[in-house]
Order: sequence, then structure tokens, then C-alpha cells
Amino acid sequence: MCHPDAVSASESSPPVCVLGLGLIGGSLLRAAAAAGRQAFGYNRSNESADAARTDGYDADTDLTAVLNRARDTGAIIVVAVPMPAVEATLTKIAEHAPGNPITDVVSVKGEVRDAVARAGLSSRFVGGHPMTGTSASGWSVGEASLFTDAVWVVATDDGVDAAVWSQVTRLALDCGSVVVPAESSEHDRAVARISHLPHLLAETLAITGAAGGDLALGLAAGSFRDGTRVAGSAPALVRAMCEGNRDALLDSLDEALRLLQDARTDLFENSSTATLVDAGHAARRAYDNHQRWDITDVSVGADGWIERMRDAGRRGGVIRNPEL
Amino acid sequence: MCHPDAVSASESSPPVCVLGLGLIGGSLLRAAAAAGRQAFGYNRSNESADAARTDGYDADTDLTAVLNRARDTGAIIVVAVPMPAVEATLTKIAEHAPGNPITDVVSVKGEVRDAVARAGLSSRFVGGHPMTGTSASGWSVGEASLFTDAVWVVATDDGVDAAVWSQVTRLALDCGSVVVPAESSEHDRAVARISHLPHLLAETLAITGAAGGDLALGLAAGSFRDGTRVAGSAPALVRAMCEGNRDALLDSLDEALRLLQDARTDLFENSSTATLVDAGHAARRAYDNHQRWDITDVSVGADGWIERMRDAGRRGGVIRNPEL
Repeated sequence: MCHPDAVSASESSPPVCVLGLGLIGGSLLRAAAAAGRQAFGYNRSNESADAARTDGYDADTDLTAVLNRARDTGAIIVVAVPMPAVEATLTKIAEHAPGNPITDVVSVKGEVRDAVARAGLSSRFVGGHPMTGTSASGWSVGEASLFTDAVWVVATDDGVDAAVWSQVTRLALDCGSVVVPAESSEHDRAVARISHLPHLLAETLAITGAAGGDLALGLAAGSFRDGTRVAGSAPALVRAMCEGNRDALLDSLDEALRLLQDARTDLFENSSTATLVDAGHAARRAYDNHQRWDITDVSVGADGWIERMRDAGRRGGVIRNPEL
Repeated sequence: MCHPDAVSASESSPPVCVLGLGLIGGSLLRAAAAAGRQAFGYNRSNESADAARTDGYDADTDLTAVLNRARDTGAIIVVAVPMPAVEATLTKIAEHAPGNPITDVVSVKGEVRDAVARAGLSSRFVGGHPMTGTSASGWSVGEASLFTDAVWVVATDDGVDAAVWSQVTRLALDCGSVVVPAESSEHDRAVARISHLPHLLAETLAITGAAGGDLALGLAAGSFRDGTRVAGSAPALVRAMCEGNRDALLDSLDEALRLLQDARTDLFENSSTATLVDAGHAARRAYDNHQRWDITDVSVGADGWIERMRDAGRRGGVIRNPEL
């Protein structure tokens, strides 16, 4: 563990090696390059790699060659492949560049962390999750500005390497995001609430509305349109997110089911919706009034920094300044 | 019952008497006047009536005088007071203008229809529901364009008076809306699905998200923001809508609960969300692809017109032309 005071500029801002050039990986390659970082990437398909090269970026379809280059340059490796391809990608990293710093941009952190452990790469791995994206996919829809002002969670798990953690944080800040430090399983529980549960409720509302036929769909206005918007996302993407976060999502879903069952009882027995509606309104106000604040008093690598960083993240703290 | 061919212009477009000058009633007074209709209104509070007069409209705080004027001019009376004030308003109408055509703009049609029956006014009443509005309220936030391209449901119940039905339809079209004919209880079941259930799900999502504290709220992005938007509406308005439509909302809520319980079982037992997500995506596509079509082949007042009109409404038909 080294204190960041001891980390030179080249150590905190090494080259960036992006594996997978879809929407997120492709945008990251562009954003890192735009920030002045040396950046190169790999994609399995010729089509995306060719498109990246045509757009002036450094991309290849030979994973071994790309990983050897990462090893030789000390690059930070960003795993940006879809979850089903993560395990095989980690196996190749373990083979060719086991000493490099590694991060990822997959939306569920627990299952990536477990796969990294199985590949024997935990000591140099710090997970990440930029909270951005669209329902579109592929190199062509990416853009350097995708991460601007987005929240980028940097996994802050027990025993994390301070130098790698700082490198991942620096990369997120270079891409224009603000960093929220959070333990992997806390992240997964939070996104179950605010990202995965919303999808299940939107699908449910869409089905219940459409079951009313053309009369109901013809009367549908803003509340239905907004409440079902994310049901328009590609089912494969929604399933991968939700099923990858199964345990945390089950807990959130059970909370929602209890609230709805209680509301059902209140409406049936008392003809009232007051308990649910008043609490829901207060909760939405809490969201509207939520304020980020800057974490400035935690030195990365100092005694207790991991727990202090996580505590700050829990209380709404974010990092905007790489010189912590 | 007269066939519309026998209805003169003054009979199909009588003066408009609006009782209640809040967001909907105040906008209706403006829109009717803008369409060239003679229009006058009543509001209980001096403040709104004064504001309406200052804006150049014909408004009064003396309900008896306004109803006597409605009686003398044969005006169509629009009940635009909040649901808790509907009963008392109907009692005054029965006292002073029992022969006038009457409609309303309250969001739940069954409970208004029942109150009208208790007041002995059913024979000259045809309910209405313009599917528009905002969370703001009062004369000052109204505007003539509130109804432009909105859907306006005209209640098409058994035994409805064809002449009054035509007058209500004409008023909605004059205000710039398209008309959907629907039986009151069918309307209430449809809006339970696409307007009231969305509110209960939004409240539930807001509570479950906020229970994750500042970390969860800080990570919340588009899916949470859109899925909880209507939880920002005033609780009193949400409660009035939902509780006024108790029976239909219980049915919709039970459908949603069954879908969510089944999804919970599927996720727990099979680690899958496929059934819910695939059906939800298809339902949202049905909504995106929903097309209105014009009802042109039903003559109001002809044999079987009520059932034919309701059938067309069920299949997505709308009325844009007053000369049916």
C-alpha cells in the first residue's frame, strides 16, 4: 500500500487499456484519449475495431497482443465486456498481464468481484460502475461526453490497494464524472433499489395497462408514459442487470411487495391510501432535495481510509478532486 | 330523444356555465370563450372570481344568481368543483336549474354518476373527463390551451340523452380535445390501470429508494427519476383520485401484485426475470404503437348508437368531428 504522495504522475495516470468497445467501453476509450491519456482498446469483432480505427482510435482484435502491450506499458486494464464474457476475459488477463491494475465498468459489482477472485486477480483489482448509458449499444453510439457529470462508483472493499484505487478514481475523474466510494455489496443493494426495482415496476405497469386494451392505452397520459419508459429497454439488457443482482433485488422487491400489500389492505379496509401516498411524497421530496457534498478530509492509504471513505459515500459524499 | 339532425346550432352550442374556476374549470371557461361560446362562471372564493374578472372573464361568487342565469339561457352546466363539493353543488342545481344539460370534469365517473342520481338529475346529465392537468391548481395556472389535443372521455352510459351527449361532445371538441366515448365504469377501470396504479407504484418506488439512504439517492438516475415523478404530486390530489376509484383500483392493484409475486418466485427459484421482462417489453411496444382512429359511422341517437359508440371507444376510436 503506498500513500498517494508517493505516487508519481505516471503511476497515477498510466496508459488505459479498454477491453470491449461497446457503448461504455467505446465511450471510455474516447473520453480517456480526450483527457490526454494514452489509450488503446480491444474488441472481439472486426467491425467495431475497424470503426474505432476509422474514427482515429488505437484498437485491435488480438486480445493477447493487446494484453502484452498493457503489461509492457503498465496500463490500467478496464474490463468493459458484457457480463457473460467477463470470466474468459479475466482468464486471459491472468495469463498475460497478472500484475497490471484492473478495473471494470459492469453494473453489478459483487459478481465481478467474485469472478476476479476466482481468476486470482483480487490484489490488483478495484471495481467501478459509471452510472450512465442508454438503451443503444455498440461503438457507433458512444461518445466522449457520456460520463460528463455522471456518478461513477469506485468499489472500496476491504483490503483494496490504495494505489490502484487512486488510479481508478483518477480515470473516472479524467472522464468527467464524480466518484462515489462504496463497498461492492452496498453498491449492489443501492442499485437494486434505484435501478433494478424501477425496471420490474415499469414492466409490471406496462403489462397491467396494456391488459386494459385500446381504451386504456388510448387514455394513457404522462403518469403511464413516464412510469413505463424503461420497459422499452432491450429485454436482454434488463435481464442481465436484474438477474446479475438477484439477491439484492429480491430484498428490494420484497420491500416493495410489503408496501403494496399494506396499501391494498388500507384501501380495502379503510378506503384510504394516506399511509402510502404521504410516505411516497416525502420520499420523493428527499430525492429532490438530495445534495452531493465533496469528500476532502480522507487521505487515501492513511489508517482507516477505507472505512472512512465508505462512510462518507453512505452520507452522500463524492470526490471531484484527484489529489486526495 | 332527438336525432342531431334536428338539433339547431344554438341547441348544440348553448352558453357554457362553469361551476368552479380552478385549473380545469378556469381553463374550460377560457377555452369555451376562445371558441366563441358565450361562457360564464362561478367560484366560491372572491379571490378566484376577482382574478377571472380582472382577466376579462364573466365570473361571479353568487351560485344562485349564476344558476338562475343558466336556467334562463339554457346553458350547459359544467360541474368543475373538487369531488367533496360535488354533492352540495348538485343539490343547488336541482333546486335552481333542474332542466339544464349538465356535465362534469371530475376524474372518477362512477361516483359522480351516483351523486347525480341521488340528486335526481340523471336524465339531463352526461359525465366527462378531460385527461389533462398538472399538479398546480387555481385560476391563475389555467390556460385556454390546456385541452388542446387532449383526450376527453364523454360518458356513454345506458339511457343517455343523445342531445345532451352531443352538447358535451361539442364542448370538448370546441376546447380542442378529441373525444373518447366510454361507459362510466369502463372509464373508471381503464384509468385505474393507466393513471391511478401508476401513482401507487411511483409512491412505492420512492419509498423503497429513499430507504437506501443518501448512497441510493445519490446513485439514482433516469429510471428512478421517471418512475417516481408523479410521487411529487400533492398527496391530497392523489388520494382523492385513488380513493374515489377504490374498487377498480383494487382490481388493478391485485393484477400488479400477482405479476410481481410471480416475478419474485421466478427470480428466487429460477434466477430469471424473463417472463415479466419479455411481457413488459411487449406491452410497452403495444403502447408505443397504439393508434387512434376516427369514429365516422355511428349516428348519435340512431338505434343502438350507445353500444356501437362504446364498442368503437373500446377499440381505440375517437371523435374529432362534431357532425356525427
